[in-house]
Amino acid sequence: MFQASVSVIMALLMGLIGVGFVIWHTKKVLSYDAGSQVMQEIALAIQVGASEFLRREYRVIAIFVLIVAVILAIFQHWQTSLCFVVGATASAGAGYLGMYVAVRANVRTASAASRGLHEGLRVAFGSGAIMGMSVVSFSLIGMTVLFLIFNGDPNQLVYVTGFGFGASSIALFARVGGGIYTKAADVGADLVGKIEKGIPEDDPRNPAVIADNVGDNVGDVAGMGADLFESYSGSIIAAATLGAVIGGNHAAAFIGLPFLVAAVGIISSLFGIYIVIGEEQDVAHARPFSDESVMGRIHHFLRKQVAKIDEKASLEELLAALRRSVWGASVVVLGLTLFAVLLSGVSISYWLVIVVGLIAGNAIAYVTEYFTAYTEKPTQSIVQATETGAATTIIQGLAVGMMSTVLPVLIVAVAILLSIWLGHKADGSITAGLYAVALAGVGMLSTLGVTLATDAYGPVADNAGGIAEMSHLPAEVRHRTDALDSLGNTTAATGKGFAIGSAILTALALLAAYVTAAKIDRLDLLDPTMLPGILIGAMMPYLFSALTMTAVGKAAQEIVVEVRRQFLTIEGLMEGTGKPDYAACVGISTETALKEMIIPGALAVIVPLVVGMVLGKEALAGMLVGTMSSGFLLAVMMANAGGAWDNAKKYIETGQHGGKGSESHKAAVVGDTVGDPFKDTSGPALNILIKLMSIVSLVFATSFGSGWFNF
Amino acid sequence: MFQASVSVIMALLMGLIGVGFVIWHTKKVLSYDAGSQVMQEIALAIQVGASEFLRREYRVIAIFVLIVAVILAIFQHWQTSLCFVVGATASAGAGYLGMYVAVRANVRTASAASRGLHEGLRVAFGSGAIMGMSVVSFSLIGMTVLFLIFNGDPNQLVYVTGFGFGASSIALFARVGGGIYTKAADVGADLVGKIEKGIPEDDPRNPAVIADNVGDNVGDVAGMGADLFESYSGSIIAAATLGAVIGGNHAAAFIGLPFLVAAVGIISSLFGIYIVIGEEQDVAHARPFSDESVMGRIHHFLRKQVAKIDEKASLEELLAALRRSVWGASVVVLGLTLFAVLLSGVSISYWLVIVVGLIAGNAIAYVTEYFTAYTEKPTQSIVQATETGAATTIIQGLAVGMMSTVLPVLIVAVAILLSIWLGHKADGSITAGLYAVALAGVGMLSTLGVTLATDAYGPVADNAGGIAEMSHLPAEVRHRTDALDSLGNTTAATGKGFAIGSAILTALALLAAYVTAAKIDRLDLLDPTMLPGILIGAMMPYLFSALTMTAVGKAAQEIVVEVRRQFLTIEGLMEGTGKPDYAACVGISTETALKEMIIPGALAVIVPLVVGMVLGKEALAGMLVGTMSSGFLLAVMMANAGGAWDNAKKYIETGQHGGKGSESHKAAVVGDTVGDPFKDTSGPALNILIKLMSIVSLVFATSFGSGWFNF
Repeated sequence: MFQASVSVIMALLMGLIGVGFVIWHTKKVLSYDAGSQVMQEIALAIQVGASEFLRREYRVIAIFVLIVAVILAIFQHWQTSLCFVVGATASAGAGYLGMYVAVRANVRTASAASRGLHEGLRVAFGSGAIMGMSVVSFSLIGMTVLFLIFNGDPNQLVYVTGFGFGASSIALFARVGGGIYTKAADVGADLVGKIEKGIPEDDPRNPAVIADNVGDNVGDVAGMGADLFESYSGSIIAAATLGAVIGGNHAAAFIGLPFLVAAVGIISSLFGIYIVIGEEQDVAHARPFSDESVMGRIHHFLRKQVAKIDEKASLEELLAALRRSVWGASVVVLGLTLFAVLLSGVSISYWLVIVVGLIAGNAIAYVTEYFTAYTEKPTQSIVQATETGAATTIIQGLAVGMMSTVLPVLIVAVAILLSIWLGHKADGSITAGLYAVALAGVGMLSTLGVTLATDAYGPVADNAGGIAEMSHLPAEVRHRTDALDSLGNTTAATGKGFAIGSAILTALALLAAYVTAAKIDRLDLLDPTMLPGILIGAMMPYLFSALTMTAVGKAAQEIVVEVRRQFLTIEGLMEGTGKPDYAACVGISTETALKEMIIPGALAVIVPLVVGMVLGKEALAGMLVGTMSSGFLLAVMMANAGGAWDNAKKYIETGQHGGKGSESHKAAVVGDTVGDPFKDTSGPALNILIKLMSIVSLVFATSFGSGWFNF
Repeated sequence: MFQASVSVIMALLMGLIGVGFVIWHTKKVLSYDAGSQVMQEIALAIQVGASEFLRREYRVIAIFVLIVAVILAIFQHWQTSLCFVVGATASAGAGYLGMYVAVRANVRTASAASRGLHEGLRVAFGSGAIMGMSVVSFSLIGMTVLFLIFNGDPNQLVYVTGFGFGASSIALFARVGGGIYTKAADVGADLVGKIEKGIPEDDPRNPAVIADNVGDNVGDVAGMGADLFESYSGSIIAAATLGAVIGGNHAAAFIGLPFLVAAVGIISSLFGIYIVIGEEQDVAHARPFSDESVMGRIHHFLRKQVAKIDEKASLEELLAALRRSVWGASVVVLGLTLFAVLLSGVSISYWLVIVVGLIAGNAIAYVTEYFTAYTEKPTQSIVQATETGAATTIIQGLAVGMMSTVLPVLIVAVAILLSIWLGHKADGSITAGLYAVALAGVGMLSTLGVTLATDAYGPVADNAGGIAEMSHLPAEVRHRTDALDSLGNTTAATGKGFAIGSAILTALALLAAYVTAAKIDRLDLLDPTMLPGILIGAMMPYLFSALTMTAVGKAAQEIVVEVRRQFLTIEGLMEGTGKPDYAACVGISTETALKEMIIPGALAVIVPLVVGMVLGKEALAGMLVGTMSSGFLLAVMMANAGGAWDNAKKYIETGQHGGKGSESHKAAVVGDTVGDPFKDTSGPALNILIKLMSIVSLVFATSFGSGWFNF
C-alpha cells in the first residue's frame, strides 16, 4: 500500500500545517484590542457561560463515549473502540477550540468595528477560519494517524469507521443539545425580559441574556463545526472503504485519493481565508523578492487577491468578498486535485467527479442564498405576506421553504447520477460509481476550511453586535456590526446548504459501504420488508423534529421559571444595582438541553439496530434510504424557511413596511420565532440523524441477519 | 373466467342496489322541510353558486378529458380511452350528485335541528350517505360493466386501468381545484368582510359569503368523494391486475375476489348507515312478522341497533354513535367476506388480509381522532401553547402534526408486512403478497359507503350552522348545529386518515402492477438512477404543496379585489338594501382555482413521463416510492396539524383560556388559518398526487425503456 501511505502522510502533513495556522492565527486574533472595561466584563460573562456549558456537556458526553466504547470493544473490535474514542475526542477538541476563540473574538470584533468595517470582518472571519481549519486539520490528523497505526491490518478501514462513529456522536450532542440550548435561551430570555419586564433585547440585567449569547456560539459554532467534522470524516472514510472494494491493483491509489484531495483542500482553504483576512503588510512584510521574479509575481498576485472592502460596502459587496474567497479556494482545489489525480494514476474521470462535487456544493449554496436573501423574490414574497398578518406570513414562509427544496434535490440527483456514471465509465462497476459519489462528497467538502469559516463567523458578528449594544458604543459601530451580522445570516444559510448537501452524498456513500460490509447482494424495492423499512425511515425525521421542537419549548419554560425567580429574589436586579446569576441560567439551559436530547439521540442509535434485527439487513438499507430522502427535504425546507423568515424580519427592520413596531413587523416576528427552531434546532439536527443512522448501520453491519420475517 | 364473471355480476347487482338506495334516500332527504323563506333564499344562493362552480369546472375538465382521451386512443388503445372517459364521467357524476344533495340538505338540516339533535344528524348524515353510496355504486357499476364488455379480451384489465386514470383526473381537479377554491373563498371573505368592513362571519351582505359556503361543499364533499372514488377504484383495479398475474388456475377467483369484497361492502355500508339514520318506523313499518320468527328477531335486532341520541348528547356520545356505525359495518363486512373467500376457493389467508386492511383503516382513523380531538393531550398542548402567542401555537401544532405521523406509518408498515406475509404464505410468491396488499386496500375501503358518509356529512352541518346564523334561528338550534359541526370536524379528520392510508396501499399495489406491466425484473436500490429517482419523487409532494399553498394566497387576493369592487360600486350593499353579486365571486374563485391548479396538475402527469423516459423505467419505480413515502408523511402531518389547530381554536371558543377575543384566541386563529390550506388544500391533494403519478406510470408502463443513462 505504498501510494496510500504517501497520500496519507501528505494528508497528515497538511493537517499539521493546518494546525500551525490555527495556533498562529489564534494568537493573532487574541492579540487584537479587547475594548473597554465594560465590553470586557460582558465578554467575560459570555466566556464563563461557555466554559460552564462545555464543562457540563463534556461530562455527559464522556459517560456516553465510555459506554459505547465498552460496547464496541466487547461486540466489535477494541481497535474500533479506540478509533471511536479518538474520533469523539478530535471532534470535541475542534469544537472546544472554535468556541474558545469565538467567545473571545466577539468583543474584539466589536472593538475592531469601531476602527472600520473591514477590520471588524477580519477579526470575526479570522475566528471562523480557526474553527474551519481546526475541524479539517483535527479530522485529517486523527484519521491519518489511526490509518498509519493500523497499516497492514486487513481490518484497517473497519476500525477507522469507528472514528466516524465517534465524530457522529459528538455531532449529535453538539447539534441537538446545542440547538435546543440556543433556542431555549433565546426564547426564554425574550419571554420574560422583553414581554414581562419590558427591558430591551441584549440587556445585561436579564439573567438569561448571557445564556442567549452563549447559545449563538453553542449552536452555530460548535454545533455546525461538529456536524461538518462528521461529514468531512464520513465522506473520506466512505470513499476509502469503497476504494478498497473496487481497488484491485489500484486499491492503494483509490484509498489514498480522498486523503490527497483533503490535503490539497487545506492549502486551498488557506488561500481562500487569506483573501478575506489578508492584510497589505502580510505580503509586503514577507516579500524579499524583486517585482519581476517569479516569487515576486506570485506575491503581487496574492496581494491583489485581498478583498477590498470600504466603509460603505453594501451587503452585496460584502457577500461578493466572501464568495470570492470560497470560489477562489475552489479554483485552487480544482487545479491541485487534477494534479493529485494524475499523480495517483487513476482515471481522469475521478477528477471530473471532484469537479461535480464542488460545483454541486456551490450551486446548493447559491440556491440557498437566493431563497433566503431579502434582496430576492422568495423572501420578498414573505415580506409582502406580513401585510396580511402572521398566518399568511407562516403560510408563505412554508411555501418558500418547500419550493426551495426543488433545485437542491435536482442538483444532488444530477451530481449522484454524473458521479456514478463517471466512476462506472472509468472502472466498469457500480461500486466504482458509488466510490465516485463518495469522492464527490470529499470534493464538495474539500474547501471546508474556508466554507466553514464563512459560516462560523456569523455568531461572532452577532455577539459583537450584542456587546456593542450593551456597552453603548457609537451608532456607526453598531451599523457596522449589523452589516456583518446580516452577512453572517446569509452565509449561515449557505453553510447549512453545504452541510445538508454533503450529508446526503456522505450518507449514500456510507449506505453503499454498509451494503458491502453487510454482504447484501440483492436490495429489491419490492422485497416484502423494503417498503415498511423505507416508510419507517421516512418517518424518523418527522419524529426527530417533533421531539426537538417540543424540547425547545420545554427547555424555554424552565429558563422562564429561573429568570422570574431571579427577578423576584435578587435585590436591585431591575434597577441595575444587583448582579444577575448568569451561570444559573446557563446551567439550566445546558442541563435541560442535554436531558431533552437523550430520547431523540437514543432513537437515532437504537432504531437502526432494531430495524436491522427485526426486519433484516435489507430493510435497514431501505430505512436508510427513506431517512435520507425524507430527511433531506425536511432539513432543506426547515433551514430555508427559517432563514427566509429571519431575513424578512430584518428587511422590515430596515424601515420598510412600517419598520419596527408595525403590524408587518409583528407578523414577521412570529415568522422568525417559528423559524428559530426550524433553522437552528430541528433542521440541522436532521443532517446528523441521516449520517448517524448510516454510520451506526455500518459499524454494526455484520451483526444483522435476514430478520424475523422469512419469505 | 366463470367465477370472475359471477363475482363481477354480483358486484354489479350490489352497485345497482346502492344506486337504488341513493335514489330512494335522495327523495327522502329532499322531502324534509326546507325551512323559512329566508333560509330558503340563502340556500338558493348556495345552490346557484354550486351549479355555477360545477358548470365551469366541468367545462375545463371536459377539455382535459377530451385531450387525454385522444392521446390515449392514439398512443395506447381506444378501449383504454373509452374506459378513461367512463371513469371520469362516473366520478364526476358521483361528485355532482353528492354536491346536489349536500347543498339542499344543509338548509333542511338547519330546519331539522330546530326539531332535535338526532333529527338534524339524520338529515345531514343522510346527505353524506348519498355521497358515500354514490361513490361506491358508480365506481363498481362503471368497472363491472366495462369488465363485462371486454370480457375475454386478454387486455381486459389493461383497458380497465383507464377507468382508474379517468377517476384520478377528476380527483385531481376536484381535490386541488376544490381545495384552492374553498380556502380562497374563505380567506378572501374574511379579509374584506371581517377585517376591513367589520361585518360578522356568514353575513349575507358579504359578496363572498356564498362562495365560502359553496367552498365547504366543493372541498369536502366533491373533493373528498372524488379522492376516495379514485382510491376505491384504484385498489380494486390493482388487485384484479395482480390477481391475473399470480392466478394460474385460480386467476378467475383472484380477479373476482376484490369485486366480491366490494359487493359485500355495499351491504355492510347500508347497515352502518342505517344505524345512524334509521327510524323506529322504518323497521316497524316493514315488519309483518311475529316477534318470535327469525325475521322478527332480525328486525328486533336491527331496531335495537339504531343509535339513541338525546338532546344533551356530548361530543363523545355523538362520536360513539358514528363509531358504532362504522364499526358495525366493519363487523358485517368481516362476516360476509369470510363467506366470500370460502366461496371463491382461495386460501383463508386472504380473508385475514382483508381483516388486516379493515383494522389498519380503523386504527389510523382512531389515531387521527386522538391527535385532533380537543379532549385529548395533543390538541390540548396546542391550546396551552396559545397562551404564549401565535409563534408557539404554530411550533406546537407542527410538532403535533409531525408526531402524529409515527403511528400511521407503523400501522401501514405492519399492514403491508402482514399482507405480504399472508399472501406469500398462501401462494408462495411475492406477487401473491403484493396482491394481498391490494386486497388489504380493498378491505380498508370496503365500508367506504359509510366511512365517506361520516365525512361528507361535515360540510352539510357546517353550512347548516351558517344558514341558522344568517337567518337568526333560535340559539338552541345554533347549539345543535354547532354540536353537529364539531362532530363533523373530528370525523373529517378521520376520513382524511382513511383517505391517506388507503392511498398508500393503493399506490403500492399500483406500483406492483406497474412493475409487472413494465416488465421490470430488477429494482435494485443501489442502481445508479434509483436514488436520483427516489429523491425527485420525495421532492414532488413539497413542490406540489408549495404550489397549492401559494395558489390559495393568489386566488384569495383576486376575491379580495372583487369584494372590494362590489362594496364600492353596488349601492346600499353595506346597508342591506343592495343585493351582492354572489355569482361573480363564485365565478372568480372557480376560475382562479382552476387556473392555479393547472401547473401542479400538469406536473403530476408530466414528471412521471419525463422521469420514465430520461431516467428509465426503474428510476420511475424509485420515484413512485419516493413520492409515496414522503407524500404520506407530509399529508398526514398537514392534515392532522390542521385538524388539531382547528379544534384548539374551537375549544377556546367554548370559553376556555379567555374565550373569543382573548389573546389565546387570536393565537389560535393564526394556527387555524395556517391549518386551513394544510388540511383542506395541500394535505389532501397529496393523496391524489401519489395515486395519479402511480396510475399515469401504470397506463404508460409499456412506453418506457431503460432511459438515457446506460450503465
